[in-house]
Amino acid sequence: MDYTVESFPLHGSRPIGVFDSGIGGLTVAAALRGLLPSEQIHYVGDTARVPYGGKSPVTIERYSLEISRILLEEGAKLIVVACNTASALAVARLREVLDVPVIGVIEPGAAAAVAATRNQRVGVMGTRATVQSGAYERAIHALRPGVLVEAQACPLLVPLIEEGWLEDGVTEQVVGRYLDPMLAKGIDTLVLGCTHYPLLYKVLERYVGGSVKLVDSARNCALEVQSVLEANGLSAPQTQQGGLRVTLTDPSTSFLRVAAQSLGLEVGEVLLRSVG
Amino acid sequence: MDYTVESFPLHGSRPIGVFDSGIGGLTVAAALRGLLPSEQIHYVGDTARVPYGGKSPVTIERYSLEISRILLEEGAKLIVVACNTASALAVARLREVLDVPVIGVIEPGAAAAVAATRNQRVGVMGTRATVQSGAYERAIHALRPGVLVEAQACPLLVPLIEEGWLEDGVTEQVVGRYLDPMLAKGIDTLVLGCTHYPLLYKVLERYVGGSVKLVDSARNCALEVQSVLEANGLSAPQTQQGGLRVTLTDPSTSFLRVAAQSLGLEVGEVLLRSVG
Repeated sequence: MDYTVESFPLHGSRPIGVFDSGIGGLTVAAALRGLLPSEQIHYVGDTARVPYGGKSPVTIERYSLEISRILLEEGAKLIVVACNTASALAVARLREVLDVPVIGVIEPGAAAAVAATRNQRVGVMGTRATVQSGAYERAIHALRPGVLVEAQACPLLVPLIEEGWLEDGVTEQVVGRYLDPMLAKGIDTLVLGCTHYPLLYKVLERYVGGSVKLVDSARNCALEVQSVLEANGLSAPQTQQGGLRVTLTDPSTSFLRVAAQSLGLEVGEVLLRSVG
Repeated sequence: MDYTVESFPLHGSRPIGVFDSGIGGLTVAAALRGLLPSEQIHYVGDTARVPYGGKSPVTIERYSLEISRILLEEGAKLIVVACNTASALAVARLREVLDVPVIGVIEPGAAAAVAATRNQRVGVMGTRATVQSGAYERAIHALRPGVLVEAQACPLLVPLIEEGWLEDGVTEQVVGRYLDPMLAKGIDTLVLGCTHYPLLYKVLERYVGGSVKLVDSARNCALEVQSVLEANGLSAPQTQQGGLRVTLTDPSTSFLRVAAQSLGLEVGEVLLRSVG
């Protein structure tokens, strides 16, 4: 199964394709909007099959290929996998079969963690699938083999965020349950290895205290996108007015409004596209 | 889109088809195994697209039709929709297009609630999609128009159950948050309107105390299946040895083992079938 992009004469006007299993990847879209205001961003959230985090590698890879194909059909010049689970399980395969650059969130997050840690002990929070994949350990060790990586699957955090319990005693207790074992190991850096987690930034920051640095891959991912666009001569003209277009595979959008508001993102009409 | 069943000479050996968005419907399969030990049961859990509870009616209906088709291809003589969300949103459509009897969990649960209530105040817990559909209110009012129905969406309970936090302080607090408004309205009967919830039976029972009766549709659904099989001459011969076969659409099965163990169900080899 190979997907190719039609040749397209006006590189500058081709969009950046961004996808996530759902809405959480809007944290990455927001970072891209902030850094690259001239770029058009097409965001696809696979809300019909969300979440990916408890599913198997073969299913996650298949879904990621299908959603990437939607973005390529719309002329995407670069694909951003704004979902840690899909980044962990599907980026290698996407790079094999797609003819455009593919950027995930794992490598930028790993690089930020390696840059941040002083004591070489890094914690990683993520979905079950992300943690089981070992993708963060591999990416961190590729940069610096001696780092101790403590990873913890946190499957309740996404449902708590989607329920809107962002500042809530129950959420704090669940956070504590997940973080305490990592804190006991003396980590000084904690990777928010799921694009939903920045919405819990305040709770997490309060819980870990000032001695642990939180690393969120959204900003680092956006910087990586900028440098790959520049290296490939794919950047939009500075004079272009960028924007964000959102497509979902299921029209249940209550969380979309919560997320867009909390991120200060302007989301216009939301398109619907059927999958599987 | 119409699905038909091939004619099949040995009615007694045709299976009962049971489906759920995931694993929770095994509570219904367990009730069927207990009541109808001669019946073969084919269970399909749509684990590739679980959960249905936050998705839109159109998506839930489409997934339900696809999974029913899998069961019919394997000769199912009757379809049990062992998922409250799919029962709420898709049973009417399935009855239109399928040539076999279709039994959901809403009507049996509503009948049990109406039989149980003394003060005509019934609470219903369910997923967002089930509660928004108003299906329990309609089914209860069809039986007895004067009953006050208080429904509460409880989207965190399925993730807590799948995390295995069945007897846990956090789960108790979340249960309290969801139930307190219904208890304040003076309900004397509470419908567990999601097939996962019986796994929280002890926590729920302890929380509501002796004055509120818990109604779980699994047993009532199994009784309805028995009577429809008998009325249509579709029952398996008493001499037949029944059994359970499980097919999943995604192979992540950690929760399958938890559920099967807690229900005392024997699940042999699990088959895998690709969808969407």
